[in-house]
Amino acid sequence: MHFPLLPLLMNGDSKALARCISLVENEAAGYEQLLENLPAGGHTRVIGITGPPGAGKSTLVNELIQLLLEQGKRIAIIAIDPSSPFNYGALLGDRIRMSQHFNNHNVFIRSMASRGALGGLSPKIIEVSDLIKAAGFDYLFIETVGVGQSEVEVAGVADTTIVVVVPEAGDEIQTMKAGLMEIANIFVVNKADHSNADEFVKNLRLLAHTRQKDNWEIPVIKTVATKQEGLPALIDAIALHQHQIMDNTERHAHLLTEKTYQLIQHRRMKDIDRRALQQQIQQQLTSGEFNLYRFVNTLVPK
Amino acid sequence: MHFPLLPLLMNGDSKALARCISLVENEAAGYEQLLENLPAGGHTRVIGITGPPGAGKSTLVNELIQLLLEQGKRIAIIAIDPSSPFNYGALLGDRIRMSQHFNNHNVFIRSMASRGALGGLSPKIIEVSDLIKAAGFDYLFIETVGVGQSEVEVAGVADTTIVVVVPEAGDEIQTMKAGLMEIANIFVVNKADHSNADEFVKNLRLLAHTRQKDNWEIPVIKTVATKQEGLPALIDAIALHQHQIMDNTERHAHLLTEKTYQLIQHRRMKDIDRRALQQQIQQQLTSGEFNLYRFVNTLVPK
Repeated sequence: MHFPLLPLLMNGDSKALARCISLVENEAAGYEQLLENLPAGGHTRVIGITGPPGAGKSTLVNELIQLLLEQGKRIAIIAIDPSSPFNYGALLGDRIRMSQHFNNHNVFIRSMASRGALGGLSPKIIEVSDLIKAAGFDYLFIETVGVGQSEVEVAGVADTTIVVVVPEAGDEIQTMKAGLMEIANIFVVNKADHSNADEFVKNLRLLAHTRQKDNWEIPVIKTVATKQEGLPALIDAIALHQHQIMDNTERHAHLLTEKTYQLIQHRRMKDIDRRALQQQIQQQLTSGEFNLYRFVNTLVPK
Repeated sequence: MHFPLLPLLMNGDSKALARCISLVENEAAGYEQLLENLPAGGHTRVIGITGPPGAGKSTLVNELIQLLLEQGKRIAIIAIDPSSPFNYGALLGDRIRMSQHFNNHNVFIRSMASRGALGGLSPKIIEVSDLIKAAGFDYLFIETVGVGQSEVEVAGVADTTIVVVVPEAGDEIQTMKAGLMEIANIFVVNKADHSNADEFVKNLRLLAHTRQKDNWEIPVIKTVATKQEGLPALIDAIALHQHQIMDNTERHAHLLTEKTYQLIQHRRMKDIDRRALQQQIQQQLTSGEFNLYRFVNTLVPK
């Protein structure tokens, strides 16, 4: 089969990339063959960025991009929109339209829904990431708005996950950070010019130290994104982590296993139409007794 | 088929309930038939309670239970332990062991993992909830620790979802609450004796007002759980909401659709062994080129 878009994509052509993404998002004829013929690997660093609202993630990402562009890098960003059951679409759209980077040819920005129509992490995020990698970008940032639901799933797609937090009351650090600790490869304490920042950073470092994994000591980087402070240290930490995991086949296999699992699940559940299901259930509820487990058996044999 | 446990369960026998739960959790012989023969309905009010760490959820639930017990009610609690990828097991275990209610026969407490071995919401939560309903408890509280990942999924299992928050800086209310707004049927502002509570409650009420759904104005209840303040108002709000949804067949059908979907997904993905998958991928990575999409095709035909 012939894919005229593929060589253009591999050449880093932004229009070809946009067309490939449309193909994949619309599941248009040939999109599966396109994915099956993507070249392996590439050098793209896939960076997940997450953290609670108000931590200044957007400013941080904007300033990071600025700095990396000055270094001549090509950057892609997927802004994850946790559209279901929430809707941040408009919010993100506004921010992206306003962005100073929107017309720079070394930058590719895309907003995507975190959830597929079937629930679970959208397989489109996996597929679009692979298209971006094939297009040879130096960095792909996957940014989640950070309401919590999709962060952990997105961490499964990224090579390096950065968790952005702000200095806060010390007594919550234990519970609050336990979940984030599992996914963080790098911590950023943004707004590090706040008065209680040093104490917070000290505690977070102590906690991070207890969670070393694969010979990787989770670094805690202090930034003040609004003043462009701490960004070179963050870029160094990313490079170090990428170097650290480069030859870790087990880690790569683990990431690919999660992606495989998500894609299989998506494919197997594709035939289930929630709307039709609900109509069927509503009818049965109206006409008499309903038992969930007997109902499931009529749909899927044990 | 004969189920000697079923009449005991329906009689509210705690030991029978515990044994039924063990059957279901271990997927022991006959557990599916047990579920298929559970009676419909029951009068149990299923209440999801969630909110960020530090909001005082545990104290609130403890005080609620105390009050409802004094009213002669029978209460069940499922404490959701988001064990994967996090682990709060020990934490919850300690709290439950310490609980003053642990030996009261009108109280049934169970800690469960939020995630199934296969990922996604554990189908065991759905199944155990149905056992508790069959045992005729007046209330079933499903409490999530509130790191965010499972809250939304648990809201899909509850008739009424209570979101517990504390007064905080006004500028974060818009983004922070957007997600919670979608799942909240009732807001509780705990620690309402804080100085900025009134302003916060006012803003939250304004925001809640814009999100009315199904003729339900999301109430914002002020509590000080440590001083037992505001709890009767909360119990009233729960009763009102339950009355409101009682005859809403569409809503019931929607809840049952989500449960059906989860159970189907669990059944269909049961054969996928992540560990074996990872070994296979690791081998392929070592021996040459790996394409995710071709690999998925070898496992699951398109």
